[in-house]
Amino acid sequence: MENVLAVLNLGDLAQAFSKMGMFPVFDLAYYIVSILYLKYEPGSVEVSRRSPVASWLCAMLYCFGSYILADIMLGSSPVDYFQYNSHILLASAVWYLIFYCPLNLFYKCVAFLPVKLVLVALKEVVRTRKIAAGVHHAHHAYHHGYFIMVIVGYVKGSGVALISNFEQLLRGVWRPETNEVLNMSFPTKASLYGAILFTLQEAHWLPVSKSTLILVFTLFMATTKVVMTARHSHGSPFSLIESWTCHLLFGSPLGGGEEDNHHPPAGAAPSSPVKTKEELSEGARKRKAKKAE
Amino acid sequence: MENVLAVLNLGDLAQAFSKMGMFPVFDLAYYIVSILYLKYEPGSVEVSRRSPVASWLCAMLYCFGSYILADIMLGSSPVDYFQYNSHILLASAVWYLIFYCPLNLFYKCVAFLPVKLVLVALKEVVRTRKIAAGVHHAHHAYHHGYFIMVIVGYVKGSGVALISNFEQLLRGVWRPETNEVLNMSFPTKASLYGAILFTLQEAHWLPVSKSTLILVFTLFMATTKVVMTARHSHGSPFSLIESWTCHLLFGSPLGGGEEDNHHPPAGAAPSSPVKTKEELSEGARKRKAKKAE
Amino acid sequence: MENVLAVLNLGDLAQAFSKMGMFPVFDLAYYIVSILYLKYEPGSVEVSRRSPVASWLCAMLYCFGSYILADIMLGSSPVDYFQYNSHILLASAVWYLIFYCPLNLFYKCVAFLPVKLVLVALKEVVRTRKIAAGVHHAHHAYHHGYFIMVIVGYVKGSGVALISNFEQLLRGVWRPETNEVLNMSFPTKASLYGAILFTLQEAHWLPVSKSTLILVFTLFMATTKVVMTARHSHGSPFSLIESWTCHLLFGSPLGGGEEDNHHPPAGAAPSSPVKTKEELSEGARKRKAKKAE
Repeated sequence: MENVLAVLNLGDLAQAFSKMGMFPVFDLAYYIVSILYLKYEPGSVEVSRRSPVASWLCAMLYCFGSYILADIMLGSSPVDYFQYNSHILLASAVWYLIFYCPLNLFYKCVAFLPVKLVLVALKEVVRTRKIAAGVHHAHHAYHHGYFIMVIVGYVKGSGVALISNFEQLLRGVWRPETNEVLNMSFPTKASLYGAILFTLQEAHWLPVSKSTLILVFTLFMATTKVVMTARHSHGSPFSLIESWTCHLLFGSPLGGGEEDNHHPPAGAAPSSPVKTKEELSEGARKRKAKKAE
Repeated sequence: MENVLAVLNLGDLAQAFSKMGMFPVFDLAYYIVSILYLKYEPGSVEVSRRSPVASWLCAMLYCFGSYILADIMLGSSPVDYFQYNSHILLASAVWYLIFYCPLNLFYKCVAFLPVKLVLVALKEVVRTRKIAAGVHHAHHAYHHGYFIMVIVGYVKGSGVALISNFEQLLRGVWRPETNEVLNMSFPTKASLYGAILFTLQEAHWLPVSKSTLILVFTLFMATTKVVMTARHSHGSPFSLIESWTCHLLFGSPLGGGEEDNHHPPAGAAPSSPVKTKEELSEGARKRKAKKAE
Repeated sequence: MENVLAVLNLGDLAQAFSKMGMFPVFDLAYYIVSILYLKYEPGSVEVSRRSPVASWLCAMLYCFGSYILADIMLGSSPVDYFQYNSHILLASAVWYLIFYCPLNLFYKCVAFLPVKLVLVALKEVVRTRKIAAGVHHAHHAYHHGYFIMVIVGYVKGSGVALISNFEQLLRGVWRPETNEVLNMSFPTKASLYGAILFTLQEAHWLPVSKSTLILVFTLFMATTKVVMTARHSHGSPFSLIESWTCHLLFGSPLGGGEEDNHHPPAGAAPSSPVKTKEELSEGARKRKAKKAE
């Protein structure tokens, strides 16, 4: 009896959670963390001094890249989301405060670890909702387009990471030897797996309600990202299972695909590929960002 | 009494000016000046010999880049404007005459300074109309999408400059260290300010009629560009006010953002960033274009 | 009398040929040959081991690049074709077999010259149909948009070749000094000429039925490509007439535009531009692909 009640309560909770509005609290956290990552990028502070327009455009790509990409994928106007003036103004205010606040006060507040951990957790709530909404939107446009659902959910979750080469180009940086598909970071991988799960759910191949899936996936993403941020770690929880699957299916050398995420041998460091932005250790980034001030 | 009449007359004049058709005279001037700038680009003459298709495509991007970009921004077909066969044929004829005319006769005529100054003035008439049309078009699609109006007006005014990295790539040139957003030339900046003004007008926040704004902005653009072309100058009339605004708002060093436009110190020249195409001194370009013949 | 009958029969044959379904046999051949060319690309086997997702995306670009580009050109969703799950699954199966089949068995079978020649011929059947369909589709959207018809037919015929720079970027390779428009390979050129022919036919300026044109163009493409593949040749049958036309119309040096396709002087080889993928000698590619195993 109590068991059933617990299930009912969990269902209600999941239902309520999946209906909760994201604007403005969660979206604000999303904008802050995203633009924080932009500030960590080497050279971005200098760009913000030299060309505020380029810096603002990059910030908008960081905040709304997922909407832009999803709109492109579904053949809509890429600037469609820019009709929501309040969202753009909020993100612009965050951009201004993070880059130009006197004494760098705002940056210091939000980059303070306990504050940042809360913001990171809130950001993952938004990411999960975006994946679910992307899959649902694609399902609406293509009823049996399972590949399209996965693609749209994937770009909604990954956002600017997937076009980081072109976002960097806007800041005058060009690193063609790597990209987010070739070297997926944890959030990009998780977005892909999440998009597959939500597509399976939308196709009724997964015996679970969407609200429950949202709740479970959010909890998984938030805890994982918080732990990774707290530990300055960039190992992925998927690496062991991925390493074996890739070995069996694609003949990848065992642990080869992921080796640079775990204890890279000291000598290999100089030749290792350029780390993607979300893979850089937090400490290194902060030092760089501080020096650039 | 006479004052009122003068105002009425000015209003009528502005009205008539804003209704004036652009095809074929003004558009022709636009195509000639645009493809002239393409010929000034180092390597473009060689490309026209080796691959006429690539050269023609670049010429089309120079002439119709603003339509292509605006169509992309609003989610239409990027080649939508190519349905106007007469415009494409006219631009193609200009391309052929500028690149392949025997004895380089056509090029010499239109690059002759007095002729060129007239053409440059006519081109600015078209640019202003494009910005106004872009803002109006975006307003039609998104009634309160003020950011979208500015963006569409901006790309309509700037045209190929905003995608110059990819236009260069088509000719086998790749200069990732700079782009038109990072180092805005005068026409790109003016297009941005113009797009903001026309958006304010469209939103009724500017107490002026659209035809008057078109007339005033056209006069400003045409005189400025004619003076700049005549003087082989590339200083911007905005630089003083921009320098102070950027200093106050974005903490840019005073005169720093613009310093390479004014008397760069002799020693700094070799390390200065690559100049954007419309910033190169006219003399240097002509010499290059002549050598390439 | 018999003459008329022969003509009638040819007309019927052409009619039947132009109605023939492409799925699955012809499409399968298209996928196999396309992904074979991907495997010939230096580094692609290594990418398939390191990042199966990037490798799969490249394979999809090779198979469906023409649909993606045509959809972009006409303002539709670029992933519109991904709604056909059976096509995507078939292409994915081919990708898996070519890259990961034990003992490389599938690759060895389809790369065996007699088999490959048949597949290459079948691929050209699909290419011609795609050009015709592209022109027809564009004609439907823009009744008098002759330039749009040529552009859409061209991208439908050329497919991934036109975006090879960006396809390479996905694999971490960046070669900005060349592209498929600057150095057109035989299939790209033939697609352009085919698109022009089909546009003339659609505009009723060519006194021939569409089914006859499809039959004749298919025969021309299939025989030419089969002969070229059998001979490991990459000279184009158009080169003589092109060389003269370009000389007369565009002042290109005689034989200059094409010289690197015919007997390049031994000393010039190291400085010659990077060959495009379909221009590399088959032998060289196979050696590279084998070494990469």
